[in-house]
Amino acid sequence: MKSRVNTLKGFFEREKLDGYIIADDTNILYFTGFLGGARVLVPREGENVLYVYGVNYEEAKETARDCKVELVKTGEDADKKVADEVEVLKLGRVGFDTLSASVYLELAKALKGVELKAKGKLVWELRSVKDETELRHMRRAAELTGEGMKAAFEVVRPGLREHEVAAEIEYAMRRLGSWGIAFDTIVASGVRSAYPHGGCTDRKIRKGDLVVLDIGAKYQNYRVDLTRTVTVGRPSSKQARIHEVLREAQERAFQSIRAGVKASDVDAVARGLIEGERYGEYFVHSLGHGIGLDIHEPPTLRPGSKDKLSVGNVVTVEPGIYIVKFGGVRIEDTVLVQEGGAEKLTKVSYVLSVR
Amino acid sequence: MKSRVNTLKGFFEREKLDGYIIADDTNILYFTGFLGGARVLVPREGENVLYVYGVNYEEAKETARDCKVELVKTGEDADKKVADEVEVLKLGRVGFDTLSASVYLELAKALKGVELKAKGKLVWELRSVKDETELRHMRRAAELTGEGMKAAFEVVRPGLREHEVAAEIEYAMRRLGSWGIAFDTIVASGVRSAYPHGGCTDRKIRKGDLVVLDIGAKYQNYRVDLTRTVTVGRPSSKQARIHEVLREAQERAFQSIRAGVKASDVDAVARGLIEGERYGEYFVHSLGHGIGLDIHEPPTLRPGSKDKLSVGNVVTVEPGIYIVKFGGVRIEDTVLVQEGGAEKLTKVSYVLSVR
Repeated sequence: MKSRVNTLKGFFEREKLDGYIIADDTNILYFTGFLGGARVLVPREGENVLYVYGVNYEEAKETARDCKVELVKTGEDADKKVADEVEVLKLGRVGFDTLSASVYLELAKALKGVELKAKGKLVWELRSVKDETELRHMRRAAELTGEGMKAAFEVVRPGLREHEVAAEIEYAMRRLGSWGIAFDTIVASGVRSAYPHGGCTDRKIRKGDLVVLDIGAKYQNYRVDLTRTVTVGRPSSKQARIHEVLREAQERAFQSIRAGVKASDVDAVARGLIEGERYGEYFVHSLGHGIGLDIHEPPTLRPGSKDKLSVGNVVTVEPGIYIVKFGGVRIEDTVLVQEGGAEKLTKVSYVLSVR
Repeated sequence: MKSRVNTLKGFFEREKLDGYIIADDTNILYFTGFLGGARVLVPREGENVLYVYGVNYEEAKETARDCKVELVKTGEDADKKVADEVEVLKLGRVGFDTLSASVYLELAKALKGVELKAKGKLVWELRSVKDETELRHMRRAAELTGEGMKAAFEVVRPGLREHEVAAEIEYAMRRLGSWGIAFDTIVASGVRSAYPHGGCTDRKIRKGDLVVLDIGAKYQNYRVDLTRTVTVGRPSSKQARIHEVLREAQERAFQSIRAGVKASDVDAVARGLIEGERYGEYFVHSLGHGIGLDIHEPPTLRPGSKDKLSVGNVVTVEPGIYIVKFGGVRIEDTVLVQEGGAEKLTKVSYVLSVR
C-alpha cells in the first residue's frame, strides 16, 4: 500500500510544489503514526524528516513510520532546522498545512527566495476520506460511545448534578477501552439545554427537564460524536413535538446522504423540514461536520457549503432546536458516506424520556 | 477592580497600538469569561466587541463580560467583520495574540494601510500572574487532582490495564466536581514509563513495574499537573535510587523558587543534582512550565530560559529520569511563586511503591 505521505507527494506536480511542511500535531500523527512531533519536512525527493524534541525522541524513534527522526536539541528550534534543510535541498516552492502567523513570518524571513504557500486543503483531501483501518477504529469508538450513552440513560434522574452524569458516561467509556473523550462532554439540563455548547455544571437535574447528552469516545485517536436528548419523566407535548420534528429531520437528512450529493443539500433537507414546522429560527448551527482524528473536519453540512460528499467521508448529522428560557433538543449520529447511501456508525436508540 | 481588558488597554501606549485582536479561544475566555467566541476586537477607545457565531450567541449574551456581543450570521466571516470594524474605527496599528498564517495574510490583504503586529506576549504578561480568583480555582483543581492520585495509589495492581487505571483516576476526579481532565492522563508502565509522554495503552501492569502517573483535573477551566511514579511491589535498588535522586532534585529546586529568581537557575538546581548523580543524559526535558487555563504557559523552567519568576506565577516542577528498556521516573508538583519562597498547590504523599 502506498504510504499516506507518498500520496501527499503525488499532489506536488499538480500544485507545483518542491516540498511540504507538516506542522499540525494531528496531521503529523496522520502521516507518521506518531503524536508528539514538532514538524515534518516532506521534500520532493529524498527522505521525509520528522523533527522531535528530546522529551519525545525515543518514543518517536520506536513508533514513527515513513520518515527518519531527527532530534531537536535543547536550545535548538524546530523551525530553524526545517528552514536550514529547505535551503540545503534548494526547495523553491514549499507548501504547509498550518502555521501560526509568527512562525510563518519568521520562516519567510529566513527563506528569502522560497515561496511559502498555505496548502492545508491538500491534507484534508486525504484525511476526509477514511480508509479501512480508520473506519475500524471509528466503529470501535462508536461502540464505546454507545456504551456511554446507555450509562447516561440509566443514571439521569432528578437530583443528580450534570457533572455527575458526565462522570458516569466517561467512566463507562473509559473502562471499556476508550482512549479518552472526543470533546468536552455536554450534559446540559433545563434552561441550559438551550445552549448548544452548554458543557456541564453543578446544576441539579429536575423532573421535567430536557437534558442534552452530547458525548464521544476516542479510540486509537479517532473520535465519534453522538447526541441524544431526553426528558426526565413524561415529556410535555411541546417537548415531545420538538423531539419528533428533529427525529424526522435527522432521518430525512440521513436518507439523502450518498456519494456525490452536495453537503449544502443535505443541510437543506433537515433545515427545510424544521422551517416548515416554524422552528427555523431556533436551528442556530450547521447540520453537521466531518469527524475523524479531529472533532471538526471537512466536509461541512451547512447552507452555502461548497463541499460534495464522497465515499469514505464520515460526518455528523445533528439538527437541533434551541428556545431560550424553554430549553433545547438535539439529535446526532456519526454517519459514513457510501456509494448509494449512508451507514450510521453510532447505533443507539432514540430514547425520548427516562425515569 | 480594573477589568482584564482595561489592563490590556493599559499597554497600548507603551506598545504604540490603536487596537488589539484577540483570536485564541482561551484568551477570549480569560478576557470575557466566555468560552466559545470567535474574535474580540479591543479598540483604543470605545466598546470592545466579542464576535460569536449563532451556535454560541445566546450563551455569550448571557455570560460574556466587558464587551458587547455581536452575532456572526450564517455566511458571514468573523475576520471579515473584524477587518470592517478596524476600517470604520480607522485603527492604524493593531496587535494580535495569535492568528494562523492564512488568516493573517487575509487580514493583511484586507487592511492595506494597517500595521498588524504579533503581540501575544502582552496577554502572557497578564495571564502568567494569577489573581486571587484564579488561585482559588487552581487550589480546587489541585485538591481534585490529589483525589485522583489517591485513587490511583489504591487501584494500581498487577493485571490491571493502564487505561483501566486512568478510568478510575478520571472517575474519582469527575465525581467530586472536576470539569474534566487538564490533559490526556498518562499511565505509563514497565518499559513504557521511559516515554515521558507515554499516554495510556491496553498494557497490563506487572509486578516490579515502574508506573508513571501524570494526571490533572480541571476546575472552572483552570488546570493542574501532578506526577507520581510508583513501583508495583518492592522497588529494586536502582528504582529506589532514581526515585530518591528525583525527590532530592525536586525538593531542592522547589526550595530555590521565589520571586525574582531566574527560571533557568531553578532548572539548573535540579539538573545539576541529577548530573552529579550521572543521570544527566536521561533528564530529557525542561524542569517545568507555567500552567493555568492552558496546560503549557510561560514561564518555562529550562536551560536558556529568559523568564524571571514573579509573585503569582504558577509553575510545575517535574524532574524525570528515563532509561530506555529499563523505565522512567518523574515526580511533579504544581507550585505557586511567592515573595520569599513558594507553595505547593498539589499536596500528595511521595509514595514510592504500592501493593
